[in-house]
Amino acid sequence: GSNDRFILSKGHAAPILYAAWARTGLFPIEDVMNLRKLDSDLEGHPTPRLNFIDVATGSLGQGLSIAAGMAYVGKYIDKSSYRVYCLMGDGESAEGSVWEALSFSSVYKLNNLVAIFDVNRLGQSDPTPFGHQMDVYLNRLKAFGFDAHVVDGHNVQEIVETFDKCMAITDKPQAIIAKTFKGKDFEGIEDKEGWHGKPLGDKAEQVIQALRQKISTKKYDFTIKPPSDVCPVVNLKSVKLSEPPKYKIGDNVSTRQAYGPALVSLGKTCPRVLVMDGDTKNSTFSEVYKKAFPDKYIECYIAEQNLVGVAIGMGCRQRTIPFCSTFASFFSRAFDQIRMGAISQANIKCVGSHCGVSIGEDGPSQMALEDISMFRSIPSSTVFYPSDGVSMERAVELSAQNNGIVFIRASRPNFAVIYQSTEDFAVGKAKVVLKSDSDKVLLIGAGVTLHEALKAAQELKAKHKINVRVIDPFTIKPIDKETIISNAKQCGDKVITIE
Amino acid sequence: GSNDRFILSKGHAAPILYAAWARTGLFPIEDVMNLRKLDSDLEGHPTPRLNFIDVATGSLGQGLSIAAGMAYVGKYIDKSSYRVYCLMGDGESAEGSVWEALSFSSVYKLNNLVAIFDVNRLGQSDPTPFGHQMDVYLNRLKAFGFDAHVVDGHNVQEIVETFDKCMAITDKPQAIIAKTFKGKDFEGIEDKEGWHGKPLGDKAEQVIQALRQKISTKKYDFTIKPPSDVCPVVNLKSVKLSEPPKYKIGDNVSTRQAYGPALVSLGKTCPRVLVMDGDTKNSTFSEVYKKAFPDKYIECYIAEQNLVGVAIGMGCRQRTIPFCSTFASFFSRAFDQIRMGAISQANIKCVGSHCGVSIGEDGPSQMALEDISMFRSIPSSTVFYPSDGVSMERAVELSAQNNGIVFIRASRPNFAVIYQSTEDFAVGKAKVVLKSDSDKVLLIGAGVTLHEALKAAQELKAKHKINVRVIDPFTIKPIDKETIISNAKQCGDKVITIE
Repeated sequence: GSNDRFILSKGHAAPILYAAWARTGLFPIEDVMNLRKLDSDLEGHPTPRLNFIDVATGSLGQGLSIAAGMAYVGKYIDKSSYRVYCLMGDGESAEGSVWEALSFSSVYKLNNLVAIFDVNRLGQSDPTPFGHQMDVYLNRLKAFGFDAHVVDGHNVQEIVETFDKCMAITDKPQAIIAKTFKGKDFEGIEDKEGWHGKPLGDKAEQVIQALRQKISTKKYDFTIKPPSDVCPVVNLKSVKLSEPPKYKIGDNVSTRQAYGPALVSLGKTCPRVLVMDGDTKNSTFSEVYKKAFPDKYIECYIAEQNLVGVAIGMGCRQRTIPFCSTFASFFSRAFDQIRMGAISQANIKCVGSHCGVSIGEDGPSQMALEDISMFRSIPSSTVFYPSDGVSMERAVELSAQNNGIVFIRASRPNFAVIYQSTEDFAVGKAKVVLKSDSDKVLLIGAGVTLHEALKAAQELKAKHKINVRVIDPFTIKPIDKETIISNAKQCGDKVITIE
Repeated sequence: GSNDRFILSKGHAAPILYAAWARTGLFPIEDVMNLRKLDSDLEGHPTPRLNFIDVATGSLGQGLSIAAGMAYVGKYIDKSSYRVYCLMGDGESAEGSVWEALSFSSVYKLNNLVAIFDVNRLGQSDPTPFGHQMDVYLNRLKAFGFDAHVVDGHNVQEIVETFDKCMAITDKPQAIIAKTFKGKDFEGIEDKEGWHGKPLGDKAEQVIQALRQKISTKKYDFTIKPPSDVCPVVNLKSVKLSEPPKYKIGDNVSTRQAYGPALVSLGKTCPRVLVMDGDTKNSTFSEVYKKAFPDKYIECYIAEQNLVGVAIGMGCRQRTIPFCSTFASFFSRAFDQIRMGAISQANIKCVGSHCGVSIGEDGPSQMALEDISMFRSIPSSTVFYPSDGVSMERAVELSAQNNGIVFIRASRPNFAVIYQSTEDFAVGKAKVVLKSDSDKVLLIGAGVTLHEALKAAQELKAKHKINVRVIDPFTIKPIDKETIISNAKQCGDKVITIE
């Protein structure tokens, strides 16, 4: 087969992963002694700064969604033979995101996915609630649509045979539930509480000696067969709008409504634009893409953590450009996934509709008020806040061309189109949308507040003969300081931001 | 029994909830015509601005954790007979937080909890993946430790009988899985897609007439029996540290370490301080409280959404003061719950340890870098960032006395104690910790950076004979503008913040 992928979702087990990769010859075995040192990338939890890591782990319960995203691309987009393996802890399985990912994987018949649960019965601070009751895990996994296999996690022969079983052709994803003992064969430590993440200290020497004596295979001369088939090379650089936005100045259209056609326009130039939504596609208008490219739309249902996790997986190794959308407020459900996405150097585009208080009668639960703050706080993120149909289309285009975590804030109400379809937009470049030689104050707004600012400007001029300048920042991060400062100076250092 | 509680987790079904309460006589039935009007509290999704609502809903999948928190308090703290009912949608059951709450409820044998699933097979934008396959839901709920009952959701007799079944004494929580049809008996609408959240428009008149004809009980004269037993009245106002902090100036202690004894000190003055953790209690030191008051510590395992949701439920109706702790970075997992908590007017204390880059070798996944921004963005929140053991104890005390959403940021490294145990602290009052008549610059730091600022001040004085002023803000929200501005002026308007 092609190159299989492995995600260590229980990232705190990184030392064994590092040691295993060293044993394959990727780097000298001595390097593992640099674990957790300041000048080493062998940190306490793995990150893609290491060339054998696809995504960062360490916030538990996130690996399986990412693995599912990779497996989806492998099965349906790459149509390749690679399989995806994800190792989780039993304590970790308390995370709801794991169950979102399990359900998603069975709904989409990801039979190229193997979820492995290391049931060692001990959490960080206490035993897990289910201990070694393997049936609890088995029943849950079966109920969630997996072919599940309980194994003795210390019996290598049995594990290998079970991996072979997982290759059998069935339309179900596979799970291996391994009964293990923490600190197996460590005298006085095995299966005991209080050792999570602790160095052995004095006991190390004795434990190492005892383990050495148990090793029956003394030689590590093995070769790993190179993959027999290779994934197609993909080119994501071609992505752009297939034609300029079709809107005319004054057209009335909401930015969320402009999102759908923009996606379709991208999809015409790049076959690897994938679109996901959390059962809000008729509100976010991602359904327009589904209608145009049904094979490249993936419904993720009401599970925003998995929505973002799957998108991160789909964007891995630059195989696709994933857009995921829901109400902007509900991205708060996936903040930890987005945060980890930055550490994973993920390439995802999050599009959130229904921002701000202007959605009114639905109530505050549906209003995105914290979304800009949330996405801005993510290192390396880009935040677009387009204010008409034309700039929305360009935001979508720029976000696809910009590698990294992007948020586009979309609005529900209709706005007048204010830009020519030929207008150029760039990340970090604001637009001066109203200007005279005698402006008394600079107004800065975006979305609904930009249009309110323009109305205010009109009224000030008509009723009070006061000219004001209006700026549309276009991106909130990076913010165009130069344009704002130079225009503020021309307006007598008077600035009003309308947020 | 005592007053049962009901949470409409599928908050978008608010109109039927409003109508039902109107029918009980709580408010005039005509008021329901004000649904979604600007001057009415009958919003599209319910909030506690309505006196019959305990918590806001509308971000799906959150109700059951809250219900579980209420049920836990009912069973183990109030030891009362009230039961808690939570109604969810089938689309909503894709949310992982639902499965966190289900698992928690069975682990803690919350047999006073009834989870109701309305399986109408239609989501907002598409059918759910499992349609009317009631077995999928039944198997999952059984695997998660529930007594589960499938019913015809349109058969009132059967529903009532099933609620009675749920009263039978068993140690399992109960689930009712109701097979329903969206728009039941609405001609041309029943069980059809495309009607989610849409007014009937032209069809309304005909549908209403048809429904009226189906009503066999024409009279609504019923009385609701008042509860036969009443919960104990509790007094949370007594809460305070039982004695001043025991630390002496110069003692070396981390603020996370000071958290545990502070909780115990509170617990001695108020029997209703409950403490929860997400299997990090040996890192956050909440385990100190568990050792002192084992019946008032609730292990929530690695499921931060449920951790916060349960805490919100426990704090409902001022019955307890819930503290929940984990690594500060992992509260990002529960941002949506915290956001909704503000709309719910929740009273919860979140304590996050391992903040900032100073935790180093564990890697960025474990570092809280976005936590202050996240909690600050929540309306009405209070954010403490104490810098020594004494101020940590006072932060814990003030947070217990402050009704609302509180975040306390705790640090891993040891710091020297800098305050006398008799020092007074207040929300929004900064401390000037170093001061002279000739300060050249004002340094502002908190936690590790305050101690670095103090070191820098010492070095500047010793090596360069430069005096600087140092401020400890104590709370980041509200920030003490007055103290900062007046001191900045005295330092020649020169301020360095060390973050």
